[in-house]
Amino acid sequence: MADKVSLAAKLATFDETWVPKVVGELNGQYVKVVKCEGEYVWHHHEQEDELFYVLKGRLRILLRDREVALEAGEFFIVPRGVEHKPVADEPAEVVLFEPVTTRNTGTVDHAYTIEARELEKI
Amino acid sequence: MADKVSLAAKLATFDETWVPKVVGELNGQYVKVVKCEGEYVWHHHEQEDELFYVLKGRLRILLRDREVALEAGEFFIVPRGVEHKPVADEPAEVVLFEPVTTRNTGTVDHAYTIEARELEKI
Repeated sequence: MADKVSLAAKLATFDETWVPKVVGELNGQYVKVVKCEGEYVWHHHEQEDELFYVLKGRLRILLRDREVALEAGEFFIVPRGVEHKPVADEPAEVVLFEPVTTRNTGTVDHAYTIEARELEKI
Repeated sequence: MADKVSLAAKLATFDETWVPKVVGELNGQYVKVVKCEGEYVWHHHEQEDELFYVLKGRLRILLRDREVALEAGEFFIVPRGVEHKPVADEPAEVVLFEPVTTRNTGTVDHAYTIEARELEKI
């Protein structure tokens, strides 16, 4: 059985932005933490809904027809198939809940891409 | 597509303790919020792993061989099949992440039992 997890303690162990780290796994889903700053890439996931929960800072999630501005303590679920582009105008700390199969840049190949099987567990 | 969700705003809409409310759904999983105070009942879930994330206050999760003491900002995953008993010595606000099929008191029938299909969505 895994130990309890402090999100702040996990986030204090790295500085890289846009590199999600796995901090928990249950029911075929991962709990990840990620530091965000600047603009991510437009992408979508074919099979996976994706939850963004902001712990610290702010995160804008651009959709093709609008944007969702998240403050700390707020979450938003991007349904599968929906194109989105996260943007952090200031440094932000974010929790992701999504299936273990989720590829971070979805169907897009990009410098940010990390294959799901290669995600670091911290 | 559902709107963004403020956990604090959802938690401000009710006072009942030990009555989980659904605030999000993705990939066959629910995100729930629950207010806790006092002792819950010993139970386990046959098929579902269960994540407890403490937003406010403290929550102790008693296991048969030890206890896990969670502070705000910490989570713990109780694997399926593992008996557990949450205890809140002071009022606590907690997020649950678990499959939509999860029955709150597991295989136990209790005054606290709410069938999964009867959970309130707020």
